[in-house]
Amino acid sequence: MEKLIITVAVTGAEVTREKQPNLPITPDEIADAVYECYLAGASIAHVHARLDDGTPTQSYEVYKKIKEKIEKKCDIIFQPSTGGATWHTFEERMQPLLTNPEMATLSAGTCNFGNDVFLNPMEYIEKFAIEMKKRNIKPEIEVFERGMIETAIKLVDKGLLNPPLHFDFVMGVPGAIPGTIEDLVYLVSKIPPGSTWSVAGIGKCELPLAVHAILMGGHVRVGFEDNIYYKKGELAKSNAQLVERIVRIAKELGREIATPDEARKILGIRKE
Amino acid sequence: MEKLIITVAVTGAEVTREKQPNLPITPDEIADAVYECYLAGASIAHVHARLDDGTPTQSYEVYKKIKEKIEKKCDIIFQPSTGGATWHTFEERMQPLLTNPEMATLSAGTCNFGNDVFLNPMEYIEKFAIEMKKRNIKPEIEVFERGMIETAIKLVDKGLLNPPLHFDFVMGVPGAIPGTIEDLVYLVSKIPPGSTWSVAGIGKCELPLAVHAILMGGHVRVGFEDNIYYKKGELAKSNAQLVERIVRIAKELGREIATPDEARKILGIRKE
Amino acid sequence: MEKLIITVAVTGAEVTREKQPNLPITPDEIADAVYECYLAGASIAHVHARLDDGTPTQSYEVYKKIKEKIEKKCDIIFQPSTGGATWHTFEERMQPLLTNPEMATLSAGTCNFGNDVFLNPMEYIEKFAIEMKKRNIKPEIEVFERGMIETAIKLVDKGLLNPPLHFDFVMGVPGAIPGTIEDLVYLVSKIPPGSTWSVAGIGKCELPLAVHAILMGGHVRVGFEDNIYYKKGELAKSNAQLVERIVRIAKELGREIATPDEARKILGIRKE
Amino acid sequence: MEKLIITVAVTGAEVTREKQPNLPITPDEIADAVYECYLAGASIAHVHARLDDGTPTQSYEVYKKIKEKIEKKCDIIFQPSTGGATWHTFEERMQPLLTNPEMATLSAGTCNFGNDVFLNPMEYIEKFAIEMKKRNIKPEIEVFERGMIETAIKLVDKGLLNPPLHFDFVMGVPGAIPGTIEDLVYLVSKIPPGSTWSVAGIGKCELPLAVHAILMGGHVRVGFEDNIYYKKGELAKSNAQLVERIVRIAKELGREIATPDEARKILGIRKE
Ligand SMILES: [Zn+2]
Ligand SMILES: [Zn+2]
Ligand SMILES: [Zn+2]
Ligand SMILES: [Zn+2]
Repeated sequence: MEKLIITVAVTGAEVTREKQPNLPITPDEIADAVYECYLAGASIAHVHARLDDGTPTQSYEVYKKIKEKIEKKCDIIFQPSTGGATWHTFEERMQPLLTNPEMATLSAGTCNFGNDVFLNPMEYIEKFAIEMKKRNIKPEIEVFERGMIETAIKLVDKGLLNPPLHFDFVMGVPGAIPGTIEDLVYLVSKIPPGSTWSVAGIGKCELPLAVHAILMGGHVRVGFEDNIYYKKGELAKSNAQLVERIVRIAKELGREIATPDEARKILGIRKE
Repeated sequence: MEKLIITVAVTGAEVTREKQPNLPITPDEIADAVYECYLAGASIAHVHARLDDGTPTQSYEVYKKIKEKIEKKCDIIFQPSTGGATWHTFEERMQPLLTNPEMATLSAGTCNFGNDVFLNPMEYIEKFAIEMKKRNIKPEIEVFERGMIETAIKLVDKGLLNPPLHFDFVMGVPGAIPGTIEDLVYLVSKIPPGSTWSVAGIGKCELPLAVHAILMGGHVRVGFEDNIYYKKGELAKSNAQLVERIVRIAKELGREIATPDEARKILGIRKE
Repeated sequence: MEKLIITVAVTGAEVTREKQPNLPITPDEIADAVYECYLAGASIAHVHARLDDGTPTQSYEVYKKIKEKIEKKCDIIFQPSTGGATWHTFEERMQPLLTNPEMATLSAGTCNFGNDVFLNPMEYIEKFAIEMKKRNIKPEIEVFERGMIETAIKLVDKGLLNPPLHFDFVMGVPGAIPGTIEDLVYLVSKIPPGSTWSVAGIGKCELPLAVHAILMGGHVRVGFEDNIYYKKGELAKSNAQLVERIVRIAKELGREIATPDEARKILGIRKE
Repeated sequence: MEKLIITVAVTGAEVTREKQPNLPITPDEIADAVYECYLAGASIAHVHARLDDGTPTQSYEVYKKIKEKIEKKCDIIFQPSTGGATWHTFEERMQPLLTNPEMATLSAGTCNFGNDVFLNPMEYIEKFAIEMKKRNIKPEIEVFERGMIETAIKLVDKGLLNPPLHFDFVMGVPGAIPGTIEDLVYLVSKIPPGSTWSVAGIGKCELPLAVHAILMGGHVRVGFEDNIYYKKGELAKSNAQLVERIVRIAKELGREIATPDEARKILGIRKE
């Protein structure tokens, strides 16, 4: 089995400091949190930018600042979000790609997201894919529903995505696919042979889905974007605490942890 | 096994007479087509209204006219669409409910629909459910993705839907769940015990999914809204021709056809 | 989709003339029944020999006689059983292979079979496979439980079976895998890519599983060995009547019927 | 989620001291090993008896001796095997029931078991079930293939088993169902609502299936009968070492461990 790639999603676009007092918000806080997770074993940093007051932003400048601050500390893979918050425009969502990251998310369809709608019409998806291809950015295909896998396959047929694909199953969002092992097994059975995948379980689904993935040969995403608790009723102290638990369990289960360079190799990320 | 309920979706919001010359458009044409399907064995008419030039409309008056014309001909169950076309507003989509139909569609989530987005945020879904409950209209829960089943279950928990639920799996829409037997089996395995279900396969998925459903104890929707061909390269002559084939196959397979009153009983539709 | 291969299992080892008055028993009767099915559209004859009093036999002479009588009438593929009756010895079961048929069954494991046990220890399986390989006989791998697929894959790894494999899922035997669409979908999902498969549904599972298979791109086995009824409470008049129904349904569903030579090509059977 | 029931299968019928030097063989050794596992967190002891030279035996006297020695040490649930070794006769296999244990295994079908056959024709299964019912022994239904679940359901219909049933999925035996998460999810989806289940993964499947089960709400069996390694290339020091790891992981995953009395309550075992 391949070594385990741990992605940490330190901030997200929805969590507030009211809910999670240790949420990293400023570029410095985000870079510090990412570095702590890197030391714990994370090899990819999934990043959402915020203004200093906590408002989600897709500003090029803020993403660039975060990227540079992280790069000064470690060689973790920088993966900005092109999803942003549900109210960001397509143009705003495109901006993080201008920082030429090694990787970026590509949400492969539209779905409800709690009371909001996460809008990814075909036109957006194709434009994101084209821009990533142009810039040699490895897409992490975000899958919130089963049909989104088919959309990704169609993009391969159109020449907009290059296999092997890397999928991230975001499971347990209210309004999209639930976070059960049956659903995970189902999604995994539908991706093209040769693909890699990780799972991001929302809320209480985070830990169980992560452990299933460790055993199944998938990869794992944890962090405050998806889940702010360490266990029921107990807030996590830091993103790193969530990464550390995954590392501990992976070792107990005999799965080794990938360094950023090993993750680059597994995912086929370009040499810069 | 219960008798087979055949729904005919004679018009839809997308098909044009350029693509299918026999598409019924005016209230008279729709009522005639529905009646022909009723004679062939259909027990539910899923109806989208059009203006006389073919433009989709959610106008109360047009739906009312269609309803009255159908009722004069036969006792088929009238099931107007609350989905309309992807560009209809929520208020427009609500109007067919004012005709107090026995049944209406309730789309349980948002997804891509080819290049468009079919918008059903949680707020819409709840408002449609409340209105249907108030008017004692039986909802047909339209499921385009697996997560939508969970949304329907949540509405039961909130008291907005009364079990047993009736689901319609719309399968094969580009951007949503594909139309394979694996996906059908998967969806069926996830609905609450005691639910009923039908399947509406889009395009070339229509016939195979319908036949699988006949064998599995589900129900079937056919018609020009979903599929305009009789077979590859050969346009259907009429909606009734598609219904007739289903009846013929069901008989060959030993499944009896439900009359409208038998369908009412199976679905638990109110006596008026 | 490939053309449909219809196998007819005209006699079996269990059915008696008391239960099915039209059961073919003698070589002449079997050859006549097979020929009638060939005319109806069958391209493979799955044959169990009987003594004239109806007792199942694995005698080389009887199989040889049946083979010759069939060959005089038509070019249908002759597929003798190496399963025999549950009380036949390994040596008896081996005898039909001495007739050098184009194809033969290879049961890939042991399971209960009603109140009996169908014994296929690993040693038998390997010896059958070796003999078939030596004689260039195409094995039809009989699968009564999910684990038997794994056994077949192990035989490929050991060099005793040559891919692509052809599986026959025997479903609905009391004590083995039941005859549901979920189980069929499950089995199909587990065979190696490039394999072909057919389904033999026992009793009332025969028709529904056959029709699912027609739609799924699989192939079909029918006949008195598996099912003696035309429909509930009505005995079939002949094996051919069961084949004719499959042909009729396949045509309605747009699937063409393979001739014996087309079946040979699909299955990769040797030119003699 | 219910507390986790850990069964330890300390000896089995196949493992030798050559392969695993710490294998408990004599009644004293078995009782000591069981007690050590009880201290570690096991609440059921699945026991196979051996003669002092290591030969598997189904002798009433030996089982009785083991039972008494265990009972002197702790209140763990004693669950003797009615499977024995593949060469034991039905009468031998029946003997452990005469000790009136609280629980015993009931293998629900026949399958290959490596190069051997594990023989459980319908007649045996029914007789074991009748004897257990008579003596108020809770059966643990051993499932090696999917069809065995159906057999158990038939025994319920015949009045030979009382629901709720408790299943143990033995997965990864060569010749039977393989030990994958897909297969586990599949089996779990097929047991009657209200059933409980555990999993016994063979060899390298033991740990991953156990952890999946912890997360899925199932229960777990470990021990030298199923697996003699702690990890690849490293023999386990004791049965208790395997139990300890399960306890450690369960705690990390937030699942509490059942005491024997809590296990009795979960399984509905009689008060003596
Ligand atoms: Zn994100
Ligand atoms: Zn519609
Ligand atoms: Zn046969
Ligand atoms: Zn045992």
